[in-house]
Amino acid sequence: MNIGLLGFGVVGRGVYEITTSRDDMQVKKVLCLEDINLPDAESVKDIKCIVEDPSIDTVVEAMGGLHPAYEFVRAAIEAGKNVVTSNKALVCTFYDELLPLAKEKGVSFRSTAAVGGGIGWLSELERSRRVQKILEVGGIMNGTCNYILDNMTRFGLDYAEVLKQAQKLGYAEANPSTDVDGIDTWHKVILSSNIAFGVTVDKQSVPVAGIRNIQAQDVENFKAHGLVCKLISTGKRNGEGYSIYVHPTLVKEGDLEAAVPMNYNLITFVGETSDRMSFYGQGAGRYPTAYNVVQDLVDVLEGKGFYAPYGEKVSADNSVELTWYVRGNWTGAVAENWGEAVVTKAVSVSDMHAWIKENPDAFVAAIR
Amino acid sequence: MNIGLLGFGVVGRGVYEITTSRDDMQVKKVLCLEDINLPDAESVKDIKCIVEDPSIDTVVEAMGGLHPAYEFVRAAIEAGKNVVTSNKALVCTFYDELLPLAKEKGVSFRSTAAVGGGIGWLSELERSRRVQKILEVGGIMNGTCNYILDNMTRFGLDYAEVLKQAQKLGYAEANPSTDVDGIDTWHKVILSSNIAFGVTVDKQSVPVAGIRNIQAQDVENFKAHGLVCKLISTGKRNGEGYSIYVHPTLVKEGDLEAAVPMNYNLITFVGETSDRMSFYGQGAGRYPTAYNVVQDLVDVLEGKGFYAPYGEKVSADNSVELTWYVRGNWTGAVAENWGEAVVTKAVSVSDMHAWIKENPDAFVAAIR
Repeated sequence: MNIGLLGFGVVGRGVYEITTSRDDMQVKKVLCLEDINLPDAESVKDIKCIVEDPSIDTVVEAMGGLHPAYEFVRAAIEAGKNVVTSNKALVCTFYDELLPLAKEKGVSFRSTAAVGGGIGWLSELERSRRVQKILEVGGIMNGTCNYILDNMTRFGLDYAEVLKQAQKLGYAEANPSTDVDGIDTWHKVILSSNIAFGVTVDKQSVPVAGIRNIQAQDVENFKAHGLVCKLISTGKRNGEGYSIYVHPTLVKEGDLEAAVPMNYNLITFVGETSDRMSFYGQGAGRYPTAYNVVQDLVDVLEGKGFYAPYGEKVSADNSVELTWYVRGNWTGAVAENWGEAVVTKAVSVSDMHAWIKENPDAFVAAIR
Repeated sequence: MNIGLLGFGVVGRGVYEITTSRDDMQVKKVLCLEDINLPDAESVKDIKCIVEDPSIDTVVEAMGGLHPAYEFVRAAIEAGKNVVTSNKALVCTFYDELLPLAKEKGVSFRSTAAVGGGIGWLSELERSRRVQKILEVGGIMNGTCNYILDNMTRFGLDYAEVLKQAQKLGYAEANPSTDVDGIDTWHKVILSSNIAFGVTVDKQSVPVAGIRNIQAQDVENFKAHGLVCKLISTGKRNGEGYSIYVHPTLVKEGDLEAAVPMNYNLITFVGETSDRMSFYGQGAGRYPTAYNVVQDLVDVLEGKGFYAPYGEKVSADNSVELTWYVRGNWTGAVAENWGEAVVTKAVSVSDMHAWIKENPDAFVAAIR
């Protein structure tokens, strides 16, 4: 296998390093803005040098971002090359377009590292689908949020303080919005649902709320009630439809999710025969992510295409009712008062997310 | 695929049920002592009806026990049939013999359900080995022990009481020795180590201690120190060798292992690039176990053989030193007194297991 590698940052360099020790694949060219000097790969600055090179059969996209990653990946598929990417935003945003195109062109398209970093999550979903109906997917899919929430819980620190610390340590970006507002998790649960259920979820029908407004007083409140806050995604069958959403969720101390430390992920599926299966590991980082990119490359060598058929478009039905912790100007029905916050009576996911949009300064968490 | 199914108990019936809805495989004959009446499979009482039937290409062993399961599986392989089994004692005990024989005969041999029940553990080890060196395997591999320890911890009950309850609920057998003395876990960590490291571990070199002697007062002691007791197996690289052992282990409250409830399993590998990956799920039960048997059958259809090459024989080197909780007549060096028990200074795994053999009434747990 001859690889054209797009990007030579954290993940790209990891992929290059792992492949150098393998006989079955070789990075031939690296697309990179800077000049790099590698013993056995050519550094190029124009994508054409890769997509127009007939000796390259597979493109690894490790640039991140939507543009020009999308244009480059599209050009690679058009040119008949297999694509492996760790870019969840890309795969999720252009799912409708890239999946059918890859099928039409008869090339492999894989993105295991896009959800769960080093966890073999999407590949295990693919395996699981061979034998059973999957009923539910979801979990802790964002290491930055978990790092922030875990440190707030452990040390009683405030959000801003922990975020600053996370930025210093490289666990959060200078502009943390994609992580803390739940966008990253949103991409991941949509992609996971598409694969688990064999559908194409209308992204706009999936509501998301992040952790930006959480305060130390909320965490104290949770502790007093034996609860721990995590950003948890859910995608599950609901009759003939699907409930799919992302929001902070309060789990019991002692639950498996509550024990997930630092920037780790814990992702779960529930299957008709296997019951609950959860997967814990490094959701990001150079080598774990590169590990799964190389796993994908081996799967491409074995002739694997995508994880599931491209399926019918569906909108999420979030009429399912939950009870919620709300700190803000909640005027709906209240079950309990917890200091400055309340626990609501049952409110549907769609109604609560509509309320959150109108009350952007409130902090809201579902109670599991 | 035409299947001969040996045994029609908990797992066998589950396999039969799942396969009836599939087009790619069919149970043709069931070996069973009782007369059973199935619409599309013949019930037979003589193994020859299966191994001498040329239309049957694959044998599923779901009888349990060593004999006659071993003789039947051996006959099936000799007759050129693929074998899928969930029988950890069988695979572990006759590893030296069955693995080379399956290779010689060119048939598939798979046993994913043998470790972790419904968890895709051995198949994920196989996948992981494609890309990285595995450094360590192990974890909570026995649901019966976890059920007992979890209930003792949650409710402060004594061992005998919880064991009785577990037996009533079907989580423990009438003679619980295989589970509570760690034998089941011992088989599973040896098989996992064989596959992870590509070796054949000398079983007698792997020491095992179980949970039979634990008392409510021990659990109280652990709680007072923020610790939780679990039966944990370990197989890890140690220089050029391997440390492999099974014993009760004290983990911190809040650790992922501490949060494993009821009869669930949590099994972990550490890889050179992936870092730590843990897998949580139902370690037993009709449908989870049958689920992985059917996964193996799909893998056989895809041409997969065993998980790893049959490798060189190795003996475990358990010179690694740990500190231990001991309630018994410990006369070695003591670091701390915990009521009637002590915490030892560093003692090697092999020395401590030798001491346990001479003090069969003591309760000993490693402190992680």
